[in-house]
Amino acid sequence: MTTSPPRPRRRDALREPESDALGTARTIVIEHVEPELDSGRYPAKRVVGDWFTASADFIVDGHDLLGGALLLRAEDEADWREIPMRPGRYDRWSGRVRLTRNTRHRYTVEAWRDEVASWSDRLNRKARARQSIAIEMAEARLLLARAAERAGAAGSRADAAVLRSARTRIARAPSDRDAARIAREPALLAAGARHPDRSTATRYDRELELVVDRREAVTGAWYELFPRSQGRTSGQATTLREATWRLPGLARLGFDVVYLPPIHPIGTTNRKGPNNAVLARPGDVGSPWAVGSAEGGHEAVAPELGGLQAFQDFRRAAKRVGIEVALDLAIQASPDHPWVRDHPEWFRRAPDGAIRFAENPPKQYQDVYPFDFHTPNEADRVALWRAWRDLVFTWVERGVRIFRVDNPHTKPVAFWAWLIREVQDVHPDVIFLAEAFTRHKPMRLLSKAGFTQSYTYFTWRTTRDALKSYLTELTKTEMRQYYRGNLFPNTPDINPHYLARGRATFVSRFVLAATLSGLYGIYSGFELLEHRRIGHTEEYADSEKYVIKTRNWDAEGNLNPLISTVNRLRREWPALQRTETLRFEPVRGERTLFYRKALPRGRLDLLSEEPRAWRSPVWVAVNVAPTRSERAVLRPTWKAVGIDPARPYRFTDLVTGATRMRRGRELPVVLGPDRPFVIFTLSQEKA
Amino acid sequence: MTTSPPRPRRRDALREPESDALGTARTIVIEHVEPELDSGRYPAKRVVGDWFTASADFIVDGHDLLGGALLLRAEDEADWREIPMRPGRYDRWSGRVRLTRNTRHRYTVEAWRDEVASWSDRLNRKARARQSIAIEMAEARLLLARAAERAGAAGSRADAAVLRSARTRIARAPSDRDAARIAREPALLAAGARHPDRSTATRYDRELELVVDRREAVTGAWYELFPRSQGRTSGQATTLREATWRLPGLARLGFDVVYLPPIHPIGTTNRKGPNNAVLARPGDVGSPWAVGSAEGGHEAVAPELGGLQAFQDFRRAAKRVGIEVALDLAIQASPDHPWVRDHPEWFRRAPDGAIRFAENPPKQYQDVYPFDFHTPNEADRVALWRAWRDLVFTWVERGVRIFRVDNPHTKPVAFWAWLIREVQDVHPDVIFLAEAFTRHKPMRLLSKAGFTQSYTYFTWRTTRDALKSYLTELTKTEMRQYYRGNLFPNTPDINPHYLARGRATFVSRFVLAATLSGLYGIYSGFELLEHRRIGHTEEYADSEKYVIKTRNWDAEGNLNPLISTVNRLRREWPALQRTETLRFEPVRGERTLFYRKALPRGRLDLLSEEPRAWRSPVWVAVNVAPTRSERAVLRPTWKAVGIDPARPYRFTDLVTGATRMRRGRELPVVLGPDRPFVIFTLSQEKA
Repeated sequence: MTTSPPRPRRRDALREPESDALGTARTIVIEHVEPELDSGRYPAKRVVGDWFTASADFIVDGHDLLGGALLLRAEDEADWREIPMRPGRYDRWSGRVRLTRNTRHRYTVEAWRDEVASWSDRLNRKARARQSIAIEMAEARLLLARAAERAGAAGSRADAAVLRSARTRIARAPSDRDAARIAREPALLAAGARHPDRSTATRYDRELELVVDRREAVTGAWYELFPRSQGRTSGQATTLREATWRLPGLARLGFDVVYLPPIHPIGTTNRKGPNNAVLARPGDVGSPWAVGSAEGGHEAVAPELGGLQAFQDFRRAAKRVGIEVALDLAIQASPDHPWVRDHPEWFRRAPDGAIRFAENPPKQYQDVYPFDFHTPNEADRVALWRAWRDLVFTWVERGVRIFRVDNPHTKPVAFWAWLIREVQDVHPDVIFLAEAFTRHKPMRLLSKAGFTQSYTYFTWRTTRDALKSYLTELTKTEMRQYYRGNLFPNTPDINPHYLARGRATFVSRFVLAATLSGLYGIYSGFELLEHRRIGHTEEYADSEKYVIKTRNWDAEGNLNPLISTVNRLRREWPALQRTETLRFEPVRGERTLFYRKALPRGRLDLLSEEPRAWRSPVWVAVNVAPTRSERAVLRPTWKAVGIDPARPYRFTDLVTGATRMRRGRELPVVLGPDRPFVIFTLSQEKA
Repeated sequence: MTTSPPRPRRRDALREPESDALGTARTIVIEHVEPELDSGRYPAKRVVGDWFTASADFIVDGHDLLGGALLLRAEDEADWREIPMRPGRYDRWSGRVRLTRNTRHRYTVEAWRDEVASWSDRLNRKARARQSIAIEMAEARLLLARAAERAGAAGSRADAAVLRSARTRIARAPSDRDAARIAREPALLAAGARHPDRSTATRYDRELELVVDRREAVTGAWYELFPRSQGRTSGQATTLREATWRLPGLARLGFDVVYLPPIHPIGTTNRKGPNNAVLARPGDVGSPWAVGSAEGGHEAVAPELGGLQAFQDFRRAAKRVGIEVALDLAIQASPDHPWVRDHPEWFRRAPDGAIRFAENPPKQYQDVYPFDFHTPNEADRVALWRAWRDLVFTWVERGVRIFRVDNPHTKPVAFWAWLIREVQDVHPDVIFLAEAFTRHKPMRLLSKAGFTQSYTYFTWRTTRDALKSYLTELTKTEMRQYYRGNLFPNTPDINPHYLARGRATFVSRFVLAATLSGLYGIYSGFELLEHRRIGHTEEYADSEKYVIKTRNWDAEGNLNPLISTVNRLRREWPALQRTETLRFEPVRGERTLFYRKALPRGRLDLLSEEPRAWRSPVWVAVNVAPTRSERAVLRPTWKAVGIDPARPYRFTDLVTGATRMRRGRELPVVLGPDRPFVIFTLSQEKA
């Protein structure tokens, strides 16, 4: 008998048509593309100037050799840019490209069979085994002619010439050995690789997103201040214009961003008094987070702060000294907010029709109405979302490019994803910092869904192990692809207990925040060692949220010299400007956290690749419980930075500038309450 | 001023319409569904009778309490079955269901706000803080009425009654405390949870696939034999009918599956001679893998094996003694295969038009033509794929339900995915074993894309660490969701060097294969300690692939008593029937691999969950380099199996049946060349 006749199929049970794959010629499988967050639902993030590396497994049946490309385009570009991918180990390929534009990008990868390389490989393996290469010689005629044609069509005359010449020379080769030698010429293989037959190439089935932010998304020293509390006369409120006197000093301290709590009119209904008293007394200034009064809502600037013009004066004055102003975006309203009257449908109401104030029992916020993102009517929800988007546009068009978003985790993440994308589609330089202090997963989700930066658990991570494990999570897990932690040792809402231990602890926490991460911030008063609190809470006593504070910014014992030194080092040493440059180093000593920050040698994507060698290293050792002194022994990873500890090397204390020559694998240090840290570099003459 | 007017948007840079999410009321985010392989591209696998557990993160803004369900349906069912999901730690939810049908399933998950539970929680938190619950009392009227209505609409009168009664009693509650008590009644909360408002529920955005195979997909002892070599007279070939005499003996040895190399007509052109000689002599029988002659192709049974009727006799005889027959599916043709003549377009041709034989330089397979899955014409490819699908249907309709597929990694994985799905859509009981010995990723891919089982690297994993690490990969990584390793210590193509070390090594390897995995197999001759090889290769000398072998199956020193004992233990101890029941145990001793196989206590999905306690444990200790004796000290994990080693417990050697009472955490054993293993169980009277 011959072939079997087509079988009658019992297809009763079948409900699906035959697969699209039937008879496909695209037989390379592309898997495990990295970065790819949650199956491509969320973008990876980089900043302008970064190298971006994408990798993938290319899996093919049979023995053909492959080629591949990373395809990248900014969202406003029509055509893909192709970056060649190179094979690594175990079927893994990767391609690397420098990012130059602050805008959303898309990328994907493509793989194909490299006909010329496969043929050359086959021919050479047979020639080595002294088998006949007659078939491969015959193939060369067709295959190199086709490749030359493709090169010509692509306008690459040089490659076409190389391919044609190889074809001729192989046909005339006096021996198999000569043919094999020609078939493996690098120029031939390169020309072939540049002009593969892509008709059956496999394109990865998803386009992935890559957010390319401006550099300030990952680098910056932040300073939070209440503009009304910048006066020099006790209890006297200041306008934004009056507060400008602080800016040159903050610039000298090395701060990059000044972040202002809400500057809008403050409601009077249910206004809170000092220390969160339920009822304000006449003359109490109220919490800036109770936004909105007869004088306006989120689009307005409080008259007591000098109105919009004073804000613009403040913003321009900051710009002149190199400081950018960040505004607070608190999506909530005081009962006096104009939208309460105009859009009652945007608020949650009790069964009796009254708008409900914010609460998370037993906590109650009588001076604040939350917006109801679950208001039942879709048109109302759409109008609410649009109103907030337009509000952000208003401030963006007034020149604000950084928003610190209050409590984003109590609003739908879909809303944030939409709003941030809407804004960044037009203004990709806008930065959103999520003030989410909640469980891990909602915090991560907000960053994945669009927030540029996020607050962190750093504020409560105080032991060496806890700090190491948390920073490892931020820098070594997938989180590094999307989560940029902005490390604050304190905020107006968080006065951590350990700060009560005094100056050494402030120093230790400051150095940790400013050197572990590219992004950190302090809330003003920190530099004056303020730590008075209410009972055993984390609330500041006489919190600036409810009263005007007047401080002596040059008070004895302030941390300004330390702050300006560390911020100067952050500017001088690029590795300190990023978080992902962090590597923990071994240390003997129970209280000492020891780490290195360095740049990779060579051009690579630190968020996707692990460098083999490093340059421009800075080491930091911090006593994390600095009320007691510790003798610690530091053991830098010498090999990674190319220093031979058996030969003399130079130790430079970057704070004092003192240098000394040393030898040996171990560096003993004493980190006491007076100076609970050391920041240094090591260098060595070439052998 | 009041509200800000809508801002004119500078939309020049915008190319996309406003997101679908605008104004959405679905604000729960579902993430990290498990199992989910490669973003849902590939199905997870289970077998009938398994518990299946799916988990997901449910992330919500605000403080509402949630509910959720796992939705599951067989592909031929119209409606989802809903299985309630329960919250675990950290926003993680999971649902568990028993699988009863051997067919492909789909599943997804859904999450919603539990209005009644959220209200009850709020009310109780306020009542505890002695705050007014007036709002919650008013809400109860609406909310419980709505819930009762939904319960009624769903036909659940009892729940409707519970909800209505609670509503009435709360309205009349004499105090806030009483209202709070009613609001937290379990019956009320349960009724509320059963009838949530699902109008804004979030459904996970993907439906995932779950292959539910029959049990033989994960459990079985395989035996490979060449039917022509089952004679009792030297050099005399046997038909399939004549080979049936072996079946009762194999059944007594405890084998479940007999796998036959190809049984089709063997080509004569370029037929290979003994020991892979390039040219056969007259009378040489040829390799069964050179499929096809004038007598037929893959649909035919070789006349020298007795033709199709003899095969059916063999298959039925096997069935009578409880053995299933597996056929080989080798997609390649001898030059004499009818399809070479009828479908030259299905083969790869040299530039001169001649069909090319198979090769992977320097290896050459002159007796075999590979099919060309890259043949340029799409219609040809479609015809080729369909021909193979129909061929498999032919054998399935003849009663074969297991195929061992030769070299699947040299054909496109898209082809296999399509073919296997086509077949299993009609016959979900068909099992495909991938004989892929290649790199990790292609092997994994074949299993993900559809193969029921796969060969493994076990054959070359000989040291204790290598075995432990490989089996850990199979049982502890995502591979366990889709990769069922069938452990063969030898195959006709692989005669591993270490077998030359003699009987003790055969025993050690047999016990490892048969007790590490639910699936294992031997190629006949193993039980007779055959290991003669060609030079330093892994090729058997005088390989049965090219000659008729005649053996004395009862030869002195054979492993049959061991095999029947171990296979009996596999039947008696269910934990030995699965691979995922494996847990390695601590041992002192360099050559000894020590492990436990046990069932979880309670109903759970061993492929997705880690049990807290175990039952029916069996321990196995094997000297993996058994030419030398070792005194090892075994240290079982007592707590996991609920035995207190400080009290007397019973040690039962499951091979000898000997028992003795012991005490203490450590079990010393001596594993020598004569008996390089011990299989035992431990038990203890209740204290």
